[in-house]
Amino acid sequence: MKKIKHLRCSKCGKNFGEEVLYHCDECGTEGTLEVVYDLDFIKTKLTKEYLKNNNRKDLWRYMPILPLKEERGITPLQVGWTPLYKAERLEKFLNLENIYIKDDGRNPTASFKDRATAVGIAKAIELDKKIICAASTGNAASSLSGFAACMGIENYIFVPAGAPEAKITQLLIYGSKVILVDGDYDKAFDFCLKAAEEFGWYNRSCAINPYLVEGKKTAAFEICEQLDFKIPDKLIMSVGDGCSIAGVWKGFKEFYELGLIDRLPQMVSVQAEGANPVNRTYRKNSREFDYKTPSTIADSISVGIPRNGYKVLNALNESRGLTVDVSDEEILSAMKTLARYTGVFGEPAGVTGFAGLLKLVEEGSINKAESVALIVSGNGLKDVKSAMKAVQKPEKIKPDLGELRKYINI
Amino acid sequence: MKKIKHLRCSKCGKNFGEEVLYHCDECGTEGTLEVVYDLDFIKTKLTKEYLKNNNRKDLWRYMPILPLKEERGITPLQVGWTPLYKAERLEKFLNLENIYIKDDGRNPTASFKDRATAVGIAKAIELDKKIICAASTGNAASSLSGFAACMGIENYIFVPAGAPEAKITQLLIYGSKVILVDGDYDKAFDFCLKAAEEFGWYNRSCAINPYLVEGKKTAAFEICEQLDFKIPDKLIMSVGDGCSIAGVWKGFKEFYELGLIDRLPQMVSVQAEGANPVNRTYRKNSREFDYKTPSTIADSISVGIPRNGYKVLNALNESRGLTVDVSDEEILSAMKTLARYTGVFGEPAGVTGFAGLLKLVEEGSINKAESVALIVSGNGLKDVKSAMKAVQKPEKIKPDLGELRKYINI
Ligand SMILES: [Zn+2]
Ligand SMILES: [Zn+2]
Repeated sequence: MKKIKHLRCSKCGKNFGEEVLYHCDECGTEGTLEVVYDLDFIKTKLTKEYLKNNNRKDLWRYMPILPLKEERGITPLQVGWTPLYKAERLEKFLNLENIYIKDDGRNPTASFKDRATAVGIAKAIELDKKIICAASTGNAASSLSGFAACMGIENYIFVPAGAPEAKITQLLIYGSKVILVDGDYDKAFDFCLKAAEEFGWYNRSCAINPYLVEGKKTAAFEICEQLDFKIPDKLIMSVGDGCSIAGVWKGFKEFYELGLIDRLPQMVSVQAEGANPVNRTYRKNSREFDYKTPSTIADSISVGIPRNGYKVLNALNESRGLTVDVSDEEILSAMKTLARYTGVFGEPAGVTGFAGLLKLVEEGSINKAESVALIVSGNGLKDVKSAMKAVQKPEKIKPDLGELRKYINI
Repeated sequence: MKKIKHLRCSKCGKNFGEEVLYHCDECGTEGTLEVVYDLDFIKTKLTKEYLKNNNRKDLWRYMPILPLKEERGITPLQVGWTPLYKAERLEKFLNLENIYIKDDGRNPTASFKDRATAVGIAKAIELDKKIICAASTGNAASSLSGFAACMGIENYIFVPAGAPEAKITQLLIYGSKVILVDGDYDKAFDFCLKAAEEFGWYNRSCAINPYLVEGKKTAAFEICEQLDFKIPDKLIMSVGDGCSIAGVWKGFKEFYELGLIDRLPQMVSVQAEGANPVNRTYRKNSREFDYKTPSTIADSISVGIPRNGYKVLNALNESRGLTVDVSDEEILSAMKTLARYTGVFGEPAGVTGFAGLLKLVEEGSINKAESVALIVSGNGLKDVKSAMKAVQKPEKIKPDLGELRKYINI
């Protein structure tokens, strides 16, 4: 395809042609590939004028810079172009002037991952793959499950046997074939990898599939357009494996190189204290990830070794990024603050970025006039059990006005 | 306001001015009021040209025919303009040619009720009401809670003590004051009514507030536009209290009277077998609702006496409507079929309309070429517990390719 130049290893920089489906041959699964476009060619098509006249209000409006040759695999599910809110009540509360909240819980299966899945499924169809697989218990799984159902594509999802039943339920409702693996997540992941090779299934894992991040970058494109191409000073996100923030950074860079925006945001990586390998490594100015058993309530970002570690380190280095670590208590408290000041209810991993913002404000690390954009990556309805830990059930009262007066103190 | 003529009682037909906030004085709470517009006046503004040039992609694009004088109370939350999918895989499966699915689970708090709340909150702000209240355990409550949080409006939500903790959690996260009433839903409803009168709170209950249905009608407007003003033969919806289907019918009628569409759909009311007072009464050609204790898995439509009964009977009579009753098993099975053929995961009440469609197909009551539009009123993530009843957890297997081969039979 004319628009793509090559695929580049995010670890060693080696280039590959499009016939390579997954990772770098020298670096193995650590060497995730990045799609490099012919931006001079794309520049002739993807202009402000083009965007202005484009009536598609979903991520397919960016087709000229998506890694697809054809529209055959585009799902009918409306994905992307999620709302970006100027959070005025929150601004007053925090004494800041420019906070923007992008609610990606509004996607078809209620998470940011839908952007990746939409492109991944389209690519699978373009490659005539009949079966897709993934290992996950979280948003990537439900996203693949829903989109595959919509397109009628057979899919196998490898899930550790201990995964919460609520999460497995959604996959079964969508009709996925759930492989309940006797083992933990890493076992399920490796088993899925092996099975994909053995049976020729297409692997929807951001850890090894270079096209998924291409869906994620569209969140950056949307923020650019929604802010009328005035780029925020800081872009704050929750970080687990690192694929999402790396994708968003790639989006900003591409729009910059296309001449659509004239500066780049500083990327802020927020991780849970108990699962902060990216932040630890970046602060040490290292490229070696040391493993610690992850522990956080924010399950989607509970990561020991980040599977897109080099991509996210590159993003942080290039943008002179910032890191913030937050505790589970801070995450749960942030969930309430965000909901109460914006009406956006996010799951723990979805609001971890916001918990980071609150911490930066507390430390005085943000100027009043600075503009901040924040992506809420998943809907709170995905994990009501965790939300329960953030609140206290009230006492019950008799249906009597006198009792009520006492209770509410009127 | 020039655009509104008067409020009309849905039971006796008596007219009232806008100074009346709630129901008919003669019929009491049975006489819910309906907003009657000056359509000749509105016709001069709300034209196809106007709609075509309107860039707002939410329900406020219909401002000329919404009961608001000003924009002050419009929430930033992006509500309405949910996707309408032509469900091609489903069509093939059912051997029909024109099925359209409107996914209203894509609203801010993941249900159709957000349309009503958006207008209700805006009206409360216009009326300078400082406090809003509601009695509900379901989607109306979470919707009010989220929108009130977004606008910073104090709110009390009356909940029966036995309500599921997951549903109460969401209200507490949003910061609502939850009044846990020692009693059932009816007790909570009456107590809320009394408290609203006593303290001058604004009551967000479709059962008595005439403005909420005005938000709901926008779903019909959107369907008209999304189908390029070609009206479906049948409009199928789950029905509980009757307010939603009555609202949607009102929307079609108004567009018809404005000359924007040239015919009206037949309204199809689908109720759970164990909670079918509307369907029972309509089939008897009666206007008396006899009470039976409701019993269905679809909690949002588990209704003994419909609180907007006359409005929905009017809608069915005027459209020569159809009724379908479905069992809980049919609802759970429909949940799977919908998810597997469209990627849309709905809660039980959200897919009850679809269960009705499946029944009509089974009975041969739908012609192949007939066009059918269907509103999915709530996201499946709202009630994963019920979804669990629809599926079976698979056996776990060892991470071994031989085992996998046996298991998936390759
Ligand atoms: Zn390499
Ligand atoms: Zn009356």
